[in-house]
Amino acid sequence: MARYKQVIAVRNDLKMGKGKLAVQVAHAAVTSAEKARLSHREWFKEWWDESQAKICVKVKDDAELRELKKRVEEEGIPNALIEDAGLTQLEPGTTTCLGIGPLPAELADRFTGHLKLL
Amino acid sequence: MARYKQVIAVRNDLKMGKGKLAVQVAHAAVTSAEKARLSHREWFKEWWDESQAKICVKVKDDAELRELKKRVEEEGIPNALIEDAGLTQLEPGTTTCLGIGPLPAELADRFTGHLKLL
Repeated sequence: MARYKQVIAVRNDLKMGKGKLAVQVAHAAVTSAEKARLSHREWFKEWWDESQAKICVKVKDDAELRELKKRVEEEGIPNALIEDAGLTQLEPGTTTCLGIGPLPAELADRFTGHLKLL
Repeated sequence: MARYKQVIAVRNDLKMGKGKLAVQVAHAAVTSAEKARLSHREWFKEWWDESQAKICVKVKDDAELRELKKRVEEEGIPNALIEDAGLTQLEPGTTTCLGIGPLPAELADRFTGHLKLL
């Protein structure tokens, strides 16, 4: 098992095509990783040198996504909430997903261990 | 239109669930972005400060993916070929996607402008 991982929580109530979904998850992964690189260099480095583990999990809606963001933010964990520009498929400003970490896997599980894989 | 973008080319001949696909694309996006940050700082910075545009396009199989990698590599463009660890769904070492750039959009289009969106 990876000792460090990045978790991307995705809203399960939106209808996104698979390409759209993949781009949203990629936005979350890149932005959250860059934040971690700058603010939690050790977490980033361990994760980078290990396997750069990433998992996608589901949340049910915008409210659950924002609540999750609030919880990790309060703990000072690097994260990135992604809002869609709304050019296609979604209304402008619609939240789509939240990137969390990379961070120690055990710490991640405290916040997201109960969520199902996408 | 974004002046800089990152393109992720995805094999269209694999059967990947949407979560699996999103993680593979995220691997490509993060790794290629980090390579660009180190080797093409100006491209990375312009893209980062703009909109971090990303698009997913399709290639038909492993051969087309590797051919595309060869072409961008020859031009010195930062890129990341992703192979799956094979723990689920795919055989170990299966290529899944290729992250290209960020790079100037016009340059990207020379290599991937003919490919359809995922």
